[in-house]
Amino acid sequence: MSDVKKVVLAYSGGLDTSVIVKWLQETYNCEVVTFTADIGQGEEVEPARAKAQALGVKEIYIEDLREEFVRDYVYPMFRANTIYEGEYLLGTSIARPLIARRLIEIANQTGADAISHGATGKGNDQVRFELGAYALKPGVKVIAPWREWDLTSREKLMAYCQQHDIPVDFTSQKKKSPYSMDANLLHISYEGGILEDPWAEAEEDMWRWSVSPEAAPDTPTYVELTYEKGDIVALDGVPMKPHEVLERLNKLGGDNGIGRLDIVENRYVGMKSRGCYETPGGTIMLKAHRAIESLTLDREEAHLKDQLMPKYAEVIYNGYWWSPERRMLQAAIDETQHNVSGVVRLKLYKGNVIVAGRQSKQSLFDESIATFEDDAGAYDQKDAEGFIKLNALRLRIAAGKGRQQD
Amino acid sequence: MSDVKKVVLAYSGGLDTSVIVKWLQETYNCEVVTFTADIGQGEEVEPARAKAQALGVKEIYIEDLREEFVRDYVYPMFRANTIYEGEYLLGTSIARPLIARRLIEIANQTGADAISHGATGKGNDQVRFELGAYALKPGVKVIAPWREWDLTSREKLMAYCQQHDIPVDFTSQKKKSPYSMDANLLHISYEGGILEDPWAEAEEDMWRWSVSPEAAPDTPTYVELTYEKGDIVALDGVPMKPHEVLERLNKLGGDNGIGRLDIVENRYVGMKSRGCYETPGGTIMLKAHRAIESLTLDREEAHLKDQLMPKYAEVIYNGYWWSPERRMLQAAIDETQHNVSGVVRLKLYKGNVIVAGRQSKQSLFDESIATFEDDAGAYDQKDAEGFIKLNALRLRIAAGKGRQQD
Amino acid sequence: MSDVKKVVLAYSGGLDTSVIVKWLQETYNCEVVTFTADIGQGEEVEPARAKAQALGVKEIYIEDLREEFVRDYVYPMFRANTIYEGEYLLGTSIARPLIARRLIEIANQTGADAISHGATGKGNDQVRFELGAYALKPGVKVIAPWREWDLTSREKLMAYCQQHDIPVDFTSQKKKSPYSMDANLLHISYEGGILEDPWAEAEEDMWRWSVSPEAAPDTPTYVELTYEKGDIVALDGVPMKPHEVLERLNKLGGDNGIGRLDIVENRYVGMKSRGCYETPGGTIMLKAHRAIESLTLDREEAHLKDQLMPKYAEVIYNGYWWSPERRMLQAAIDETQHNVSGVVRLKLYKGNVIVAGRQSKQSLFDESIATFEDDAGAYDQKDAEGFIKLNALRLRIAAGKGRQQD
Amino acid sequence: MSDVKKVVLAYSGGLDTSVIVKWLQETYNCEVVTFTADIGQGEEVEPARAKAQALGVKEIYIEDLREEFVRDYVYPMFRANTIYEGEYLLGTSIARPLIARRLIEIANQTGADAISHGATGKGNDQVRFELGAYALKPGVKVIAPWREWDLTSREKLMAYCQQHDIPVDFTSQKKKSPYSMDANLLHISYEGGILEDPWAEAEEDMWRWSVSPEAAPDTPTYVELTYEKGDIVALDGVPMKPHEVLERLNKLGGDNGIGRLDIVENRYVGMKSRGCYETPGGTIMLKAHRAIESLTLDREEAHLKDQLMPKYAEVIYNGYWWSPERRMLQAAIDETQHNVSGVVRLKLYKGNVIVAGRQSKQSLFDESIATFEDDAGAYDQKDAEGFIKLNALRLRIAAGKGRQQD
Repeated sequence: MSDVKKVVLAYSGGLDTSVIVKWLQETYNCEVVTFTADIGQGEEVEPARAKAQALGVKEIYIEDLREEFVRDYVYPMFRANTIYEGEYLLGTSIARPLIARRLIEIANQTGADAISHGATGKGNDQVRFELGAYALKPGVKVIAPWREWDLTSREKLMAYCQQHDIPVDFTSQKKKSPYSMDANLLHISYEGGILEDPWAEAEEDMWRWSVSPEAAPDTPTYVELTYEKGDIVALDGVPMKPHEVLERLNKLGGDNGIGRLDIVENRYVGMKSRGCYETPGGTIMLKAHRAIESLTLDREEAHLKDQLMPKYAEVIYNGYWWSPERRMLQAAIDETQHNVSGVVRLKLYKGNVIVAGRQSKQSLFDESIATFEDDAGAYDQKDAEGFIKLNALRLRIAAGKGRQQD
Repeated sequence: MSDVKKVVLAYSGGLDTSVIVKWLQETYNCEVVTFTADIGQGEEVEPARAKAQALGVKEIYIEDLREEFVRDYVYPMFRANTIYEGEYLLGTSIARPLIARRLIEIANQTGADAISHGATGKGNDQVRFELGAYALKPGVKVIAPWREWDLTSREKLMAYCQQHDIPVDFTSQKKKSPYSMDANLLHISYEGGILEDPWAEAEEDMWRWSVSPEAAPDTPTYVELTYEKGDIVALDGVPMKPHEVLERLNKLGGDNGIGRLDIVENRYVGMKSRGCYETPGGTIMLKAHRAIESLTLDREEAHLKDQLMPKYAEVIYNGYWWSPERRMLQAAIDETQHNVSGVVRLKLYKGNVIVAGRQSKQSLFDESIATFEDDAGAYDQKDAEGFIKLNALRLRIAAGKGRQQD
Repeated sequence: MSDVKKVVLAYSGGLDTSVIVKWLQETYNCEVVTFTADIGQGEEVEPARAKAQALGVKEIYIEDLREEFVRDYVYPMFRANTIYEGEYLLGTSIARPLIARRLIEIANQTGADAISHGATGKGNDQVRFELGAYALKPGVKVIAPWREWDLTSREKLMAYCQQHDIPVDFTSQKKKSPYSMDANLLHISYEGGILEDPWAEAEEDMWRWSVSPEAAPDTPTYVELTYEKGDIVALDGVPMKPHEVLERLNKLGGDNGIGRLDIVENRYVGMKSRGCYETPGGTIMLKAHRAIESLTLDREEAHLKDQLMPKYAEVIYNGYWWSPERRMLQAAIDETQHNVSGVVRLKLYKGNVIVAGRQSKQSLFDESIATFEDDAGAYDQKDAEGFIKLNALRLRIAAGKGRQQD
Repeated sequence: MSDVKKVVLAYSGGLDTSVIVKWLQETYNCEVVTFTADIGQGEEVEPARAKAQALGVKEIYIEDLREEFVRDYVYPMFRANTIYEGEYLLGTSIARPLIARRLIEIANQTGADAISHGATGKGNDQVRFELGAYALKPGVKVIAPWREWDLTSREKLMAYCQQHDIPVDFTSQKKKSPYSMDANLLHISYEGGILEDPWAEAEEDMWRWSVSPEAAPDTPTYVELTYEKGDIVALDGVPMKPHEVLERLNKLGGDNGIGRLDIVENRYVGMKSRGCYETPGGTIMLKAHRAIESLTLDREEAHLKDQLMPKYAEVIYNGYWWSPERRMLQAAIDETQHNVSGVVRLKLYKGNVIVAGRQSKQSLFDESIATFEDDAGAYDQKDAEGFIKLNALRLRIAAGKGRQQD
């Protein structure tokens, strides 16, 4: 364990990663660089500086990555209408590749030979951090304290703090949520506690980002989203940067009881786990993106996207953002978005995201053909006979030869 | 046109198909057999008898197919969590194969050499009826009056009625909906009228099966669905037949503002069309089926199902229920459902279907492994290191050889 | 039929398309523009000029498209290792989009409002020509004489020639092959005649481009193919243009009895048909491309390519080259080819294409890791335990809960 | 290491697994049960008995599993036309699930709590053995000596033999092949030695099961394979059991220089490796199965099979035979094989497998429709126009609205 000289730690400023700073210094006798990022988790990041300094850290990185996070990770993912296992919008998964990349970049800048994180050995996040790190710097050493140390209970952790003079904010410890939580601009997640029983309904006071549908306003909110090439560029006509869009949609969604999700999911490490998520803005974005695509995508590319999406979601969920297969799928997805431009009008009401209208200069909806009224010859109904006849031919031949028919 | 002797017509008892009866008799100089089915469209079917008799029809088939419809078509489809283009629950599509099969069976029983239907030449339904018919009786003659005749406007149709003494119920004609509608136990659909403008919001008084979320009760309704091998067999502990389940869920859903959908979809004949749908029970069933699967399906079979689903939906949407590819996909889907048994508890509230709990004797959720607490050695966190290392190996080798990393 | 003013015809110079020239002039009373292309079919194209002139054609296009054909169509297709139904290298399919594009470009240049071709109403080629034409010029009129006229037998055709003074080369007619053939730089195809019986073995004298394996030399030929980004750029170290590569490989393959194929395939129009093909160069290229990819592609992108390939092949076979779904798939495929560079050494011998070696500066083969000898710690075998344990976890949980195990 | 009481070892009777017997006894102080199976590797299995006895083994299982191997593993796999990475017929992969199952069954019979095998920590076989074992007996302990011990060189192994009186047949050691080999009825594989250089051509004297194409007879061999429901049931009209079929085809193929393969493949553990394989019978079976399917499968089920095949191959290659996803895929594949019956006639000649004819009572090839001659109205060519027009509609609408066309 003596061969690590410097390690870059994903540092939240909280108790657990503070313990990790000390444990790394002690165990590996190495220098620790901390990296703290604002990716929209809703907590101040600047206080992490003093805490790190108090722990003897000399190189401290504190960064606001919100714009980059939404522009380069969330937006590309939403172009694919990505959902994992039919429900989950991948709020945690999509933040990890960015953190991994910055950890490695900082390691390269500071001459560190290792990175470290505070994810446990049971979850997906360790995988996502480490696959990203290895993909970007193949020789890096990864230290995952939760898989190594023996501080496996809250009591041991507290004892360690006392021994090492790590200040514990007992107020915050007392009020500590019974849930394991993770947040960024896309979502906040809850695991553990009573959620470990899939039959137990989540308690109302667990949710932090949204009011319940019951508590939401009795009148709907309308909002118009403007798309350019698959990405939202304006809300109600006001141009915004990607992270501003998401912040605003989170507010609108949360106020209207939108985006709560309660699921049992399959982790990459092989177990099922129960999770609750609030993704107010993302829930709105998914519905809206499908709506603008419904006007502007060709049928076959749309269907092919739908067939590829579960694989793309799995790739991201499992932590393979920095992989050739993700780039390959992204190339296919992005190729379809050149004309995904226009406006979607949504009605938000007590948990519902309702499409109230969609329009696009690139629309492939052809009213003159689709109409139930006289189409003035735009479509020759007689063509349908030949279309059906030849599509039926293989079925007719088979039936004519006595094949099973039902 | 003289070589058709007897034709079985899918007869609703309405004006259009009444005109078709007469037109077939006249144009083909053939006998017409009418077939009218109750598939839960919400209208009496028995009155079709007198109307058919008045038109000189001698062989009249009127049948209640609700149980068969839900048991043999709707339920198998929901085992796949089937959605077309991310939104549509295939309410119209799934009823057509049953109608096609009965048309052909009646043709075989009555010695008819042709079948006929009232679907237009622009839509998907002509394709679904005819592919089914050809697959089940390859030599059958299909007559699609809307593709053949010149009664292309309401005025011409009325004139034809007058000429041929077909009674027109002018009361119902006056109140005629501006929408083209289709209904069965799974859904009711609306097309045409102002919906031909995708930017126009549907009017509140169009919807027939559900109240608006705004008008729904202010207190939620809870319901428990019991699954056996992928199918719902009881509601709130009361055993029910498939169509009774769907009827009950339609009532619960409709009362709580659940199941409205407003989309632009891609038709098989090559155009986009705007449609609105109410699928109250189906919307509940989709959410619940995913919930019970989340506990009971293995991860990899679940992911494979998700990858196959868009193709399966396309097959059904396009009218290929009676095809080898549908049977092949169904075999794969059904293979996964042996253990999809248990109970899902749902909260229904103003348009929302919220999973409040799920449990199963076949659950693969292992609390002793998933727990954030001490797992007493059920899972060895150190295994994760090797897991990650080998999964990262190909990425590390590539990066080590200078491959693109981002 | 009077509204066509000018039609561009895909004109081979042969009897059938010469009849079409006259028939178009007569039937549509329109001007005919002929377009004859050298795409490597192995016949002179210049003689078509005099024939067209003799038929009164004023605008005559004769072009050498061999380079464009291989560079822009054959090469991109081979990047995907494309095979239709496990066997067919799509030799006919891939030439049609180019012809369709030139027909439309010439129509635009000459102000023609229609295009025409000599493909029958039973085959795939009509579909490919016409889908391409409609995709590139949506308002174009397509005239497919074989679907319209009554010249449905050789006798009627001959009578038509006599009536209209179309010179028939009776020598060539007498020696006329019993097969329907089509050729371009990628392949030559045979259909009809005794091939209509799938049990009948093709006769040796049918094959034109290759000797039989029996007649091939008793000593092997070695050749080295140099790849850059997925495409062959040199043979035996000599840089060549794409069509020169293919010409040379056709020669080498044909001389060594390589590339014969005898299959029953499924046409897009719904029937099965028997076809024989000679694709000497293409057969070599497929084997070699897989070999260079085996060294240079990441596993997951390689597997994803293999999963997408059948769809890509179907898209091309069915005639959708000029479609958004083909562009989408191409984007994914091309994204994987950046590092597909290196050299493949092949042994050609009596029908066999044998990989004798492959090397690449972009190789991901890591001898130090793969070795059976001591790897000096490059790979830690103990990692495998955790890898297996976590991959087995879901299976163990299921088995532990009594799930089916075999 | 003291908690293992009895372990079932996959025992070949060779030196390495003999060392393992002793090492297990010593290291774990446990009883060893040996299991030796004849799966067609071409070596006597009975001599393993005396060797095991000499090592103090009391429970010795020696079994002939050839029939079961081909019937229950090889045949189902070939129904899918399974190839891994476009080339590899999975000869090693498919034998492992059977061995794993017998190991577990014997463990259950003998009351053993562990199993062991002689596969290394770098390869796929450890994964396949262990995934199978865990899936079938989730609580089993797996001992993989190559991942644990320090006998990492031939010298150390020899020293261990000397120390423990394990008899070494120095004759066979001297003649020891430079390759790591594995054989069963489906194939023999070679790895290591000069093969670790992908540019090096395999030496002729490496190959054991087949003559070179050059050395094969100058006259072809014809053989007829009779299929029932996707499986070969007779050769040249003589009914045979599955393993007899494969033995006979191995002989025919090997004599005619058929089935050699030289590839670089991607292992599940993340590295590329070079392997050479001889699969004479399997190579014939793949070609023949495609041929009988070409007559008897519907187009869409055939295409769907082709799309699923790479995933199915990956599942087997990676060791997930005993998994829900394999069963799911198998259900889909088997559903398509009900009519895959008939006869395929093959010509075998110097490395070539040439289809000389195929016939079936379940044939979907309809000569009356496919013919180039007059089809007497079986197919109406005019249907093609409507078919093309509606298939083109989406492309025309897009082009009409100015979308990218090439």
